[in-house]
Amino acid sequence: MRVEIWTDINCPWCYVGKARFDQALAGFEHRDGVEVVHRSYELDPSRPQGVTEPVLPMLAKKYGLSEAQARQAEERIAANAAAEGLEYRTAGRDVGNSFDMHRLLHFSREHGRQHELIDLLYRANFAEERSAFEGVERLVELAAEAGLDAGAARAVLADPERYAADVRADEQEGARLGATGVPFFVLDRAYGVSGAQPVEAFGQALAQAWANHAPLTTVGAARDGEACGPDGCPLPSDD
Amino acid sequence: MRVEIWTDINCPWCYVGKARFDQALAGFEHRDGVEVVHRSYELDPSRPQGVTEPVLPMLAKKYGLSEAQARQAEERIAANAAAEGLEYRTAGRDVGNSFDMHRLLHFSREHGRQHELIDLLYRANFAEERSAFEGVERLVELAAEAGLDAGAARAVLADPERYAADVRADEQEGARLGATGVPFFVLDRAYGVSGAQPVEAFGQALAQAWANHAPLTTVGAARDGEACGPDGCPLPSDD
Repeated sequence: MRVEIWTDINCPWCYVGKARFDQALAGFEHRDGVEVVHRSYELDPSRPQGVTEPVLPMLAKKYGLSEAQARQAEERIAANAAAEGLEYRTAGRDVGNSFDMHRLLHFSREHGRQHELIDLLYRANFAEERSAFEGVERLVELAAEAGLDAGAARAVLADPERYAADVRADEQEGARLGATGVPFFVLDRAYGVSGAQPVEAFGQALAQAWANHAPLTTVGAARDGEACGPDGCPLPSDD
Repeated sequence: MRVEIWTDINCPWCYVGKARFDQALAGFEHRDGVEVVHRSYELDPSRPQGVTEPVLPMLAKKYGLSEAQARQAEERIAANAAAEGLEYRTAGRDVGNSFDMHRLLHFSREHGRQHELIDLLYRANFAEERSAFEGVERLVELAAEAGLDAGAARAVLADPERYAADVRADEQEGARLGATGVPFFVLDRAYGVSGAQPVEAFGQALAQAWANHAPLTTVGAARDGEACGPDGCPLPSDD
């Protein structure tokens, strides 16, 4: 069974939600039969690349809060994160354009390192008192830490076309499936879980999707469809 | 809606089936809403890379036929191909390990050129009196003809790890979905069409999958799931 998680590295609830989902998955009896794929979503696709903004003033401006009120809001997210065993720091954090991170996540998936990389990106953005949007070399460093080849990661980041179509396709697919925000979890393309739900809700969703996994409905008569298999192609002269 | 087609370049019925599917899609009123993705399947994953075999002796050996009988069987596939407007030649064709072709198809998808490349690979294998398994430079040439960067394609082919995980993941996913041979068409992850069915069967499958597109079942209370959207993250202090 495949679970797809639409996410943005800028999104605190994605960070918390992933930890809750991971916990539910760790306790799920069929966890070895579950493949997890992280899908791209940009909270602010219009933000220009390279233009970052510290989190607190951004929040204050967006919600018409004082910086003290914005800080309080962040502290409450931090408490949610701490409850999941996650470090969460507001100081030093920027919001930024995450398109390159998403491209790199697609590259990492190709090499079987997506899980490692997304955790490192979240850690860089939320657990360190430092901007995760310092540019290419910072991302190359994280890619290498995730087990990817640094030179190959640098080449991906240097070519804005690489994986761009994958990022866009993820975003369109998410919208088609009904994602209006993230995190957005899709189980077996049949069940949707929106937001950082409690661990129990993810456990329930996993159980429900697993139990109700629907086989494909076959269309067309099998007899009509000539096909090739490991034992070869049926010879038309057998007809 | 997404249609995924499991295929092997070695598979004549995949070549014929794709032409029939393409014809059905061209006549489908919602064709602009259909995304087609080609998925990897190897008819003979155990065949060593670089070890090729001319088609006719292989068929004769596999089915215990004389070469004349094998040729007759091929002529009947050729007639099916011709009915779809496809050139089909047996002379000069080899069977070979298609893993690199599949890796290249994944690379081409990343760059939005998968449709171009798969048609060129089929043409190379079935329409030309020449082996499609001549090695890297032949594939690089086809990649360039498909609009891909020749150097980048060469780099992909030179590194056996690139996209290997994607090929394996496709194969596992195909098996999980019930593919025991190819072509195998999966519409919206809900409907399956096995083999080179008639054009009408594909048209029916497209209509059925489109009409019955099921929305996701929502699991968990939306209220519980904190999420971030284009307008920001709900502030926990609003709770």
